[in-house]
Amino acid sequence: MVAVTVAQLPLVIGEREHNLSLAAEAVLAAPRGIVVLPELLNSGYCFRDTEESRALAEPLDGPSVRALTELAARTGSTLVASLAILEPAAGPGVASQSEPARPPERVVNVAVVVEAEGIVGRYTKVHLWAREPEHFVAGTDLPALVPSQFGRLGLMVCYDLEFPEFTRMAALAGADLIVAPVNWPLEPRPEGSRAREQIVVEAAARQNRVAFAVCDRTGAERLGEGVGSDWVGGSIIVGQDGFPLTPTAYGRPALLSAEVDLEASRDKALGPFNDVVRDRRPEVYGF
Amino acid sequence: MVAVTVAQLPLVIGEREHNLSLAAEAVLAAPRGIVVLPELLNSGYCFRDTEESRALAEPLDGPSVRALTELAARTGSTLVASLAILEPAAGPGVASQSEPARPPERVVNVAVVVEAEGIVGRYTKVHLWAREPEHFVAGTDLPALVPSQFGRLGLMVCYDLEFPEFTRMAALAGADLIVAPVNWPLEPRPEGSRAREQIVVEAAARQNRVAFAVCDRTGAERLGEGVGSDWVGGSIIVGQDGFPLTPTAYGRPALLSAEVDLEASRDKALGPFNDVVRDRRPEVYGF
Repeated sequence: MVAVTVAQLPLVIGEREHNLSLAAEAVLAAPRGIVVLPELLNSGYCFRDTEESRALAEPLDGPSVRALTELAARTGSTLVASLAILEPAAGPGVASQSEPARPPERVVNVAVVVEAEGIVGRYTKVHLWAREPEHFVAGTDLPALVPSQFGRLGLMVCYDLEFPEFTRMAALAGADLIVAPVNWPLEPRPEGSRAREQIVVEAAARQNRVAFAVCDRTGAERLGEGVGSDWVGGSIIVGQDGFPLTPTAYGRPALLSAEVDLEASRDKALGPFNDVVRDRRPEVYGF
Repeated sequence: MVAVTVAQLPLVIGEREHNLSLAAEAVLAAPRGIVVLPELLNSGYCFRDTEESRALAEPLDGPSVRALTELAARTGSTLVASLAILEPAAGPGVASQSEPARPPERVVNVAVVVEAEGIVGRYTKVHLWAREPEHFVAGTDLPALVPSQFGRLGLMVCYDLEFPEFTRMAALAGADLIVAPVNWPLEPRPEGSRAREQIVVEAAARQNRVAFAVCDRTGAERLGEGVGSDWVGGSIIVGQDGFPLTPTAYGRPALLSAEVDLEASRDKALGPFNDVVRDRRPEVYGF
């Protein structure tokens, strides 16, 4: 059994130091294990324009990964977050009259797995939501399978979860726990209903017999400014049977932990006769 | 808008006439539209042995399809059910001392769509649950896309729904409504939780922006006899946003109807910027 925690934090756009201090507080309070933090932990989400998203991004060896590495070293935990990252891009440099040519850079939404020795795995978000293509270049690789100290983590980000192909592939690759930092925008839902984003995760856990740890955020950003959003606050840990292991904490900060049997994700049996992987019929699907 | 009904019937194993009369009562009481009946409507589910399943199966032009055709003609509705069917099989005939060689036959779990003129579409269950392989030969074709009078029906059966590849393919093929007769075996679940089988359907509806009509059954069969089962009674109609359009009627007979906007399944937009089909990244998945 591994202690898994999702830290639903009230991030503030543009306030990296504040956001990192919220993360530090949560990681120090969580039991040693796997701690998942929200998407775009360093920057916030509702950028006014591309100048702002570029200004809030940082190199992969920048202050956020350094802070997470220190926290991982101090606690012995494995930390997961997504960050707005500025990375070298292929192509010609850009020159101007006043400056020499610089190598081009691009902004990406990168999920990292950090342990005491630094980054042990990374993944660039493939499925971009809403206006994200204005700010981020989409990734081109499958979910990372990261061999952490506690088990194999399947790493993806937010909207990626809506694609059943993607969660299936992470499970087939051998993930013990699919970890996903998210920022789920709040949409109206019928009274008493669970958020559909959570339902999608619960279904994927059951259909793939794999555990999930998904970390959402709180703290409405720039409402009324056109680019703004509030958030579901639907952070959730789900067992291999598709039932949540954590209570809901809609719309408020929360630190939710559960003991998760990661080994159980390697057993794909569904009842005494069936197996959700062996029962697939690739010869019928054609893939 | 089309009136869609799921008829959660208390079937009795081995009692075809009784089961067909329950179906008739339900279809006559339902509003004209699409009426989905349970899996293995003609036979029941918990067979003692292969002799029994073979004896309860019937040809595709047998009494059950005849009865459904008459009901469709009388009501103008489109009917969906799955039946235990005896069909010709390839291979050498079987001879015995007392009888001449007969063409070989096999038993299959076939979903049919029936209108006034008879069968307009059929599909043989591909993913077999528990002991079904002892009784049924598995199908080898994708979900049928059936052009009914009310719209294009994607046709599958019970355990097929657990495979996200399958529901995805039915949606990509252009289903306006995915219809599935099921017999969901009752398993314990945490107090107050919805059945995971329903969650899987709700998630697939949202992820594919397609409506579902899934018809379960009631009437525990042969409990305590080893082969027996009780049933969830989780019949459900779900809209393209993944929210149920019908209340739950766990463990009791029920006729659940909803007006469903089938046209809306052709619009795959999720919010103003996204589209669940266009946003797929086949070049990343490799299929």
